[in-house]
Amino acid sequence: MTLALYTYWRSSAAYRVRIALNLKGLPYEARPVHLVNDGGEHLKPAYRELSPQAQLPTLIDGDLVVRQSMAILEYIEETHPEPALMPRDAQGRAKVRELMQAVATDIHPIGNLRVLKALESELGAGQAQKEAWSRRWITLGFDGLEALLAEGVAGQFCFGDTPTLADCCLVPQYYNAVRWGVELQRYPVIRRVVAACQGLEAFEQAAPERQPDAPVG
Amino acid sequence: MTLALYTYWRSSAAYRVRIALNLKGLPYEARPVHLVNDGGEHLKPAYRELSPQAQLPTLIDGDLVVRQSMAILEYIEETHPEPALMPRDAQGRAKVRELMQAVATDIHPIGNLRVLKALESELGAGQAQKEAWSRRWITLGFDGLEALLAEGVAGQFCFGDTPTLADCCLVPQYYNAVRWGVELQRYPVIRRVVAACQGLEAFEQAAPERQPDAPVG
Repeated sequence: MTLALYTYWRSSAAYRVRIALNLKGLPYEARPVHLVNDGGEHLKPAYRELSPQAQLPTLIDGDLVVRQSMAILEYIEETHPEPALMPRDAQGRAKVRELMQAVATDIHPIGNLRVLKALESELGAGQAQKEAWSRRWITLGFDGLEALLAEGVAGQFCFGDTPTLADCCLVPQYYNAVRWGVELQRYPVIRRVVAACQGLEAFEQAAPERQPDAPVG
Repeated sequence: MTLALYTYWRSSAAYRVRIALNLKGLPYEARPVHLVNDGGEHLKPAYRELSPQAQLPTLIDGDLVVRQSMAILEYIEETHPEPALMPRDAQGRAKVRELMQAVATDIHPIGNLRVLKALESELGAGQAQKEAWSRRWITLGFDGLEALLAEGVAGQFCFGDTPTLADCCLVPQYYNAVRWGVELQRYPVIRRVVAACQGLEAFEQAAPERQPDAPVG
């Protein structure tokens, strides 16, 4: 049965899952949900029935509905083990998950769209303040992530010399970092790993601008 | 070899790990790191050498250092499989991880101490605004979580009738919800599950007020 993925071209969390599906060579039906148009399609009852948290992405595999990108990544790995996107040993998996969560819990949630909206509506933040807020948390997070990678777990990729789920998390966050104008020269390991990832078709095809729902031109 | 856990009595992320270690019956050496005293002990070079992100908790298992509570929880489960804190099938594990991440990525990071500090320093938020911010995200997150649990995965606990890693995440977040004065009457499933958890010694012993570094009286 073909997998289906509720996605938005610029959603960092959906981007993670698109990369993993491509690395596994799994075809899937992309079902775009626009986070901005019409006040946000994810907030409409139709999508909320599928995702009570009104968030992207959501994976459909037969009767199973899985929300939360990190849960989806682990599910894909468990149900389609080859090519492996996790190390074979518990120690290695702990290191990969450490890197995944350093992005998924410590950077991404604090600067995503709904938080920026709330900074404006609840605290009166202007555009410049919202952009500074995003840069602040990406910078702080990348400082930690660069140090974690430099400890020696990184090879060509975040962990060793083949892509793992950690790379699936890093690349979308890097995309956001570029978008928000974060100073990236200070992260040589992150930049090297991202460059290696971007050389792979699986990552390339998952990029926001390559999605069917990306704006044209 | 005895495990060691860098912990702070009120750290929600450390609290998750304490519960899991207790449920597994694993003794560990608690190494307190005070997040407030002396400008925050976690920000000092000694702790940063261990945790480049300057965050709690950190688990030490022999030569292995694991940061990130979600990575630690999975590591504990993989290396000490009994009693199981995850379902045996991939579908069940996906559901448990969905619940875990609904807390760990969608609620906790947005309202934790370092974010509240930045709301004050960067955007001039006062105490009342910071408290409202915390309540806002816990409420929004619990709205989604209650719906996820009510879909039918919850039994006595978050998933079925024995504790899982999802309960390890929920209970500390509930503690924070009480602390910030969130209106909890509207979450009957969450409240029922938390009550079941609180009836277990493993959860009770992990509570903030029971920690050696909790203030007296």
